[in-house]
Amino acid sequence: MIKVGVVGATGYAGEEILKILINHKAVKITELSAIIDKEEPISSLLPVFKGSLDVICRKPNAEMVKNVDLVFLGLPHKVSMDVAPAFLKAGKLVVDLSADYRLDPATYEKWYGIAHKDTANLPQAIYGLPELYYDQIKTAKLLANPGCYPTSVILGVAPMLSAKAVDPAGIIADSKSGATGAGKKADIGLIFCEVNENLKAYKVNEHQHKPEINRILSRVAGKDIDIVFTPHLVPMNRGILSTIYMKLTKPLDTKAAIELYKKFYDGKPFVRVADEGKLPQVRDVVGTNYCDIGIKATGSTLIVISCIDNLKKGAAGQAVQNMNIMCGFEETEALS
Amino acid sequence: MIKVGVVGATGYAGEEILKILINHKAVKITELSAIIDKEEPISSLLPVFKGSLDVICRKPNAEMVKNVDLVFLGLPHKVSMDVAPAFLKAGKLVVDLSADYRLDPATYEKWYGIAHKDTANLPQAIYGLPELYYDQIKTAKLLANPGCYPTSVILGVAPMLSAKAVDPAGIIADSKSGATGAGKKADIGLIFCEVNENLKAYKVNEHQHKPEINRILSRVAGKDIDIVFTPHLVPMNRGILSTIYMKLTKPLDTKAAIELYKKFYDGKPFVRVADEGKLPQVRDVVGTNYCDIGIKATGSTLIVISCIDNLKKGAAGQAVQNMNIMCGFEETEALS
Amino acid sequence: MIKVGVVGATGYAGEEILKILINHKAVKITELSAIIDKEEPISSLLPVFKGSLDVICRKPNAEMVKNVDLVFLGLPHKVSMDVAPAFLKAGKLVVDLSADYRLDPATYEKWYGIAHKDTANLPQAIYGLPELYYDQIKTAKLLANPGCYPTSVILGVAPMLSAKAVDPAGIIADSKSGATGAGKKADIGLIFCEVNENLKAYKVNEHQHKPEINRILSRVAGKDIDIVFTPHLVPMNRGILSTIYMKLTKPLDTKAAIELYKKFYDGKPFVRVADEGKLPQVRDVVGTNYCDIGIKATGSTLIVISCIDNLKKGAAGQAVQNMNIMCGFEETEALS
Amino acid sequence: MIKVGVVGATGYAGEEILKILINHKAVKITELSAIIDKEEPISSLLPVFKGSLDVICRKPNAEMVKNVDLVFLGLPHKVSMDVAPAFLKAGKLVVDLSADYRLDPATYEKWYGIAHKDTANLPQAIYGLPELYYDQIKTAKLLANPGCYPTSVILGVAPMLSAKAVDPAGIIADSKSGATGAGKKADIGLIFCEVNENLKAYKVNEHQHKPEINRILSRVAGKDIDIVFTPHLVPMNRGILSTIYMKLTKPLDTKAAIELYKKFYDGKPFVRVADEGKLPQVRDVVGTNYCDIGIKATGSTLIVISCIDNLKKGAAGQAVQNMNIMCGFEETEALS
Repeated sequence: MIKVGVVGATGYAGEEILKILINHKAVKITELSAIIDKEEPISSLLPVFKGSLDVICRKPNAEMVKNVDLVFLGLPHKVSMDVAPAFLKAGKLVVDLSADYRLDPATYEKWYGIAHKDTANLPQAIYGLPELYYDQIKTAKLLANPGCYPTSVILGVAPMLSAKAVDPAGIIADSKSGATGAGKKADIGLIFCEVNENLKAYKVNEHQHKPEINRILSRVAGKDIDIVFTPHLVPMNRGILSTIYMKLTKPLDTKAAIELYKKFYDGKPFVRVADEGKLPQVRDVVGTNYCDIGIKATGSTLIVISCIDNLKKGAAGQAVQNMNIMCGFEETEALS
Repeated sequence: MIKVGVVGATGYAGEEILKILINHKAVKITELSAIIDKEEPISSLLPVFKGSLDVICRKPNAEMVKNVDLVFLGLPHKVSMDVAPAFLKAGKLVVDLSADYRLDPATYEKWYGIAHKDTANLPQAIYGLPELYYDQIKTAKLLANPGCYPTSVILGVAPMLSAKAVDPAGIIADSKSGATGAGKKADIGLIFCEVNENLKAYKVNEHQHKPEINRILSRVAGKDIDIVFTPHLVPMNRGILSTIYMKLTKPLDTKAAIELYKKFYDGKPFVRVADEGKLPQVRDVVGTNYCDIGIKATGSTLIVISCIDNLKKGAAGQAVQNMNIMCGFEETEALS
Repeated sequence: MIKVGVVGATGYAGEEILKILINHKAVKITELSAIIDKEEPISSLLPVFKGSLDVICRKPNAEMVKNVDLVFLGLPHKVSMDVAPAFLKAGKLVVDLSADYRLDPATYEKWYGIAHKDTANLPQAIYGLPELYYDQIKTAKLLANPGCYPTSVILGVAPMLSAKAVDPAGIIADSKSGATGAGKKADIGLIFCEVNENLKAYKVNEHQHKPEINRILSRVAGKDIDIVFTPHLVPMNRGILSTIYMKLTKPLDTKAAIELYKKFYDGKPFVRVADEGKLPQVRDVVGTNYCDIGIKATGSTLIVISCIDNLKKGAAGQAVQNMNIMCGFEETEALS
Repeated sequence: MIKVGVVGATGYAGEEILKILINHKAVKITELSAIIDKEEPISSLLPVFKGSLDVICRKPNAEMVKNVDLVFLGLPHKVSMDVAPAFLKAGKLVVDLSADYRLDPATYEKWYGIAHKDTANLPQAIYGLPELYYDQIKTAKLLANPGCYPTSVILGVAPMLSAKAVDPAGIIADSKSGATGAGKKADIGLIFCEVNENLKAYKVNEHQHKPEINRILSRVAGKDIDIVFTPHLVPMNRGILSTIYMKLTKPLDTKAAIELYKKFYDGKPFVRVADEGKLPQVRDVVGTNYCDIGIKATGSTLIVISCIDNLKKGAAGQAVQNMNIMCGFEETEALS
């Protein structure tokens, strides 16, 4: 039984982490914090927890370090790197859901607009995509939990790059996300009537998740990758569906491509590769930690559709999956 | 051809007024203003107007008074009463969509929390529900455009009170509104993921539209009315459906009640009373200026369902209807 | 460990039962059936279950009786009474989610249009609302699982009737439901564009759940109750919110009413009564088996808001809660 | 004043045509038909028209040919070619919204699964995309109104192909559509709860609109084009947004590409090309006949976002635009 804290407990990712952890056999939630007006039980702030979780949610505070073995940081980008060092110094495990520990300092500064403030700890951060980095995650102290778009895109592309079966120069990811991906913040562009009955592309090929995708895919390919990436905002709460287009460098039909993906993800509990003629959809992954992948080869183009719940495999679920691996628990504990 | 201005042109009601006015034969839009960072064509601020309306939207300014014959105030409550006096003083017609000119000073202060600032003009304000006050509207200088909930509830109740066929003490209005009713503002409770897949009652019997409903219904009944009023927020952009329960004081079947309503609204172009066995729904009024009314008598209870598009008959459409009457245009001009 | 079957496994309620049961410690899912073209693993029919449930879903068949200890019938009304007798004859427990065993034969025939076909077993059916009938449920062989609207309305009204604090003649239930309540069927009125951006009342005071509500409330009150009941269809997948209006027969303020409800539901794990000033909303119960109740007294009217997930407490969750009680399991097993 | 009929008046496209035509100065709606149980005023079948359109909707019948000058066929594919010949034989103008007159016979048979039944009239059919074929449309007798996806994709691609500035072999169109695009039919996959909170790709590179796109783009390019086309179903009523990826064959920055598009569509009233840094969104075109186009060049890839209301520019609006051109009316009449 380990003691776990959540910083940023009232955000969408924080709430989802708590929903998972209350069913986790080996975890005791000991500390919660968030930017709030008044300290009260989390069940007063998020009534869904009434009757199931009554831990007090406190304002951001330094003392909670003492009362946790592992902390989840459900914080905005640029804030996590202020908070993580104290936990690390005290020898506590950190699972950070922000982007603060996912990039090298120069790339971070370019895309997030400020110099990185914790270059001391940054080098030891492990990128928490268990399907690629299981062994490193086992011994991680500081875990950089992947972004939601990167999770869906990388899992959709990695098998082909790894097999050197596609042109690394011609990868296009057209991603569509539900609105929880934008976080729980008062923004005029996020209010109901601006999102509902609407659909739009945004930050076309300029989204801050692009360098994260490029970095990991470059590692997989062994050479520099620069994808074309277009995110879209879809009027639904949860879910990401990425439609990925790749140029095949050798003939490969749909059946063979599916085999390749099934082999690549063999033994990975949270990737499901669809059989020929079947396609993933958001409805089948919402509420689960699965990444569903569907594949279709057509001429020299391979179309891969990769689908996740952005709050589960794209955030909180993957964070718990990483904790499970870091702490030696069953990888699927509380996630199935 | 009259010159018309809109103050608060970028809000939901303002946008809707413009959409109506660009098809109005007798109106030229000459002035627009809103709280904005930079003065630019309205089509830059609201791209839907690109190609159809290019008037510059200015910051709030005193000069626009000179360049309009009539102004629509699409402003928040408490702001209109600061703005209206200058237009009135200059002899311009004012159609105010806020609640500022709908109540007596004491009731206003009680429900809106501040003393009324324009008690000089308040007495001349005409309540702009054309189905009840057509003649007064014809000569109005200052028009208090009704609230969205009040429009749906008053039109649903007035015929019965007028006929003295229901107990004035036992009226319940259970109203459901789409999210544009809350306005275009950055509020955490209004963001997509808080409204979507959710449904809630709010301000139960404490909503600020209650005294407005009570005031008008009391006039109709010739005695003090105090309804029970529960508003709900529904995950859709537009539409209000009010389900109203009244106690019959004399036997009346559905057929007879429908006849009574049809007679009451005879000649009124924007009220449609459904035949027996038919019920209104939001889909049939969205985008129109109609109020659809369905009726069912059951024992001593009369159930009336009153349905409008909150941005049309509940705000902008009714405002233009009122302008049409005030200016001697066809009542339905640009509204059908 | 008991062997459990689900008839009608591919409907919304059937799918939800399976989602709950795969996390149930004392249950093994042994048999599934549905009207399908081809017998295949349930995970092929409902891909969400891929990796977590691979039981074959068979066409309706007589043999499954032999291989279950308890069966859930997720069938349409009028079909369950054809299917239940075989299970009962073989001594198996039956939890029926249809309306077939909720009414007396005469009322059933009046509202469902055909004579009841299983009057032999009907008398032993227990109405499965655990908050009222826990003891009878413990020994039930045939469990009539309550309807979704009745669950929300009865739990909202029972405490007041039981305390004889409201007029039994003046109860109004204005209920709003998400679209899963209508079931998974190809009906032009249920397609996306007819429900989305729409809101309507239907079967006003004529819905088939009305006699069910009346029957149970009459038992609670010890006299005949005939409520006014208006259901509405809301553009969301899940959730029912019932706004209930009752006439107080003795003075009672909000605080005292809340106390009364808290006392009535003391020890009931799935009813949460909100504190003064707080109101339930669909978002807080979706995905849970809770019924959230909020209360406001205003003059002689008591307004009660009762909120459930129609697929959980309103169907599958309550069905499993009933199974837990019938089988001597923890009442909350797999439900929290 | 011409006499106009609509066959298939109760479908989504038919309803939209009527909404447009009731505001058209030069048109009298004389005949409506649909597959219905009982002949009654269209306002009884579609209550939105109560008070504004009371023409009787009849069952499919041969006589209506006599009473129209022009007919819109809002019919499913494979049905129009049974209906059009009678109107053509009688010398009436036909605007067909189905796919029946958009392809050559061989391609039609391949994609729609049956031999074409009206090869006599097929050769004279004009493809009704006014931005490309204005002059031909002026004298058309039989107008093949474009599909919704093709309208958005062709308008997004044509300027580049025409300028020979992109590789014709590498065009990818990732299109997202609201649910009205699937028509008004009772299909289990289209019911609210299957579409809402869901997102999926379907008929990946196999959609029947693909040959239509290829045919027109091939004409524009002067060589055979075979695009990669992935349609997606998005939980919203209306709107299509196509994100199109093309390989530049010569260096072109965003600004220059925008210029090229603006020049290509100069004088076309219903195409709006966004300025640099601005992107179209569904919200800005819903309810309008505009196609909004946004452009971004990035390396050798040009990303074009093309956005329409699938029922307006993608169906009914374009059909009326075509009628306006065919009949010598103002091209924008009733459409702005």
